[in-house]
Amino acid sequence: MPDRNKQVLLAAHPEGWVKESDFKIVDVPMPEPGAGQVLVRNDYLSLDPYMRGRISQRKSYAKGVDVGQVIVGGTVGEVIASNDPGFKTGDKVLGGLGWQTHGVAEANTLQKLGATKLPLSIYLGAAGMPGVTAWIGLLQIAKPKAGETVAVAAATGAVGAVVGQLAKLHGCRAVGIAGGAQKCAYAVKELGFDACIDHRGANLAKDLEAATPDGIDIYFENVGGDVLEAVLPRLNDFARIPLCGLISDYNSTEPRGIPDLRLFLFKRILLKGFICSDTPEVWPEAIRQLEGWISSGKIKYRETVIDGLENAPRAFVGLFKGENFGKLIVKLR
Amino acid sequence: MPDRNKQVLLAAHPEGWVKESDFKIVDVPMPEPGAGQVLVRNDYLSLDPYMRGRISQRKSYAKGVDVGQVIVGGTVGEVIASNDPGFKTGDKVLGGLGWQTHGVAEANTLQKLGATKLPLSIYLGAAGMPGVTAWIGLLQIAKPKAGETVAVAAATGAVGAVVGQLAKLHGCRAVGIAGGAQKCAYAVKELGFDACIDHRGANLAKDLEAATPDGIDIYFENVGGDVLEAVLPRLNDFARIPLCGLISDYNSTEPRGIPDLRLFLFKRILLKGFICSDTPEVWPEAIRQLEGWISSGKIKYRETVIDGLENAPRAFVGLFKGENFGKLIVKLR
Repeated sequence: MPDRNKQVLLAAHPEGWVKESDFKIVDVPMPEPGAGQVLVRNDYLSLDPYMRGRISQRKSYAKGVDVGQVIVGGTVGEVIASNDPGFKTGDKVLGGLGWQTHGVAEANTLQKLGATKLPLSIYLGAAGMPGVTAWIGLLQIAKPKAGETVAVAAATGAVGAVVGQLAKLHGCRAVGIAGGAQKCAYAVKELGFDACIDHRGANLAKDLEAATPDGIDIYFENVGGDVLEAVLPRLNDFARIPLCGLISDYNSTEPRGIPDLRLFLFKRILLKGFICSDTPEVWPEAIRQLEGWISSGKIKYRETVIDGLENAPRAFVGLFKGENFGKLIVKLR
Repeated sequence: MPDRNKQVLLAAHPEGWVKESDFKIVDVPMPEPGAGQVLVRNDYLSLDPYMRGRISQRKSYAKGVDVGQVIVGGTVGEVIASNDPGFKTGDKVLGGLGWQTHGVAEANTLQKLGATKLPLSIYLGAAGMPGVTAWIGLLQIAKPKAGETVAVAAATGAVGAVVGQLAKLHGCRAVGIAGGAQKCAYAVKELGFDACIDHRGANLAKDLEAATPDGIDIYFENVGGDVLEAVLPRLNDFARIPLCGLISDYNSTEPRGIPDLRLFLFKRILLKGFICSDTPEVWPEAIRQLEGWISSGKIKYRETVIDGLENAPRAFVGLFKGENFGKLIVKLR
């Protein structure tokens, strides 16, 4: 067993765009598990947009990270010491140990990954928090009907890619919005979207109009800003907007919103903010379904894997500039 | 039977604030019912904020009124000639015959008012469209739990008064917002609101904060504008906003919206636009319940009754300035 643990701490609450100097890498002694605790060696760390909210000083939906604390984050890894009868050395576990190579967790915060044939990192992506977020937002909040049009922002991202493929599995037209021709081509050719619009293109509103001849019934919102503004005029009566992220606003000091609420009245639109951790009771069923679709190839996924914890801050900064392609993962060993 | 029918026609689509000259009163020959049709003498005409949208040229949720057409509106009255076996002379009926003293309706658009002990005008108010709107928005969309705080804009209006009383019947704290000390006193003393804030007072935001020590779980929205802006910071996690009207915006040429969508994400807020006519299937049960509460005195109501169709335009203009107190009704005979 190694005797040192590498961690990324918050050096400063970011103002505006997050930057590498907001983080600090440290090397500390290996922690020791107490009673009912488990020591885990992390294999993969998930980097996700929500973390921007946690390291902000602004009030968000969860307790924030203070300066000097380890940044929060989902991890998969292996038990290397256990003081809990439920876990033994060698067990593969999903947890939230944060930006560090090792960590001690209360046993009840870990989930054992059984005899899965899928690669472990998938439990941070399509069969993990992002996949469950897509599942809850599309299937439980928006409730798609066959023949409807589903528009998905950040269509090749960890959440958006699952949303689009779930929409297709439910008989909908899936229209993606993504940054760049390469991502758009991937969304259509690999993920099976019916169309995908490059929001860096000349005319987002016009392109979106052409791609949604029957309007938009569901807009899965995780971006906000200009994309939302282009979507609003295309919304049909009784449109639903599950809202699980606003990545374009996270680094902004000028908030964006909905310019005219009358649209929501006249078109009887549903807007619902949600966080997947609010409904732990649906996770097992969501993951079971997602694993099935991933195993049978009906849900495809793509990862950008960054090698080494020391590169996590740079990769995280790039996440808000769309530098990743698919789920952003840090490989820790 | 009289041989003339008095009507109010749309003279011009209003721009900005609606004014009396947007209407024109005419005297036309009495219409004759065809096969399957019924001639009704209207006793009461309902004046409601939604009509502002119908006479606008702006796209709304329903077909608009063209210049030269009779203004739409709910009516109660008595059958004076029938070519349908389902109706006979003397039957009391609820319909949508619009701003006129008499009208011909397809029999299937009329609802017979049976052996009710309640005054007929109630079926345009607390036991009619406004009451059903309150019932759907609060009970079906917002789903109040005992102990929650329900804030109600236009608290003494036809919809808001029912919302507040329904909230109290469901064990909630009801906080009204109304225009003027007299309306606020009525909301608390007569309708049983726990508090009511005068939005014409010095500091709406501060007064609202004092009246909602535990925040706001449900905001029943039918006003918009400054009231909405004051409510937003008071919303709790998982707040619900049924949205059935935006009276403060109807005459505005500068739309108002939600300044920062992040609030809806962080607090997982539900916003749902709705129109009571979208769900005709729930009306019978809603009206049955409302009639019960009105009969037993658990839901009180107040009307401003205007005498004579020729005074309808002036009363309608006043509706947007808060000149009415309770449900605005025009007595036609």
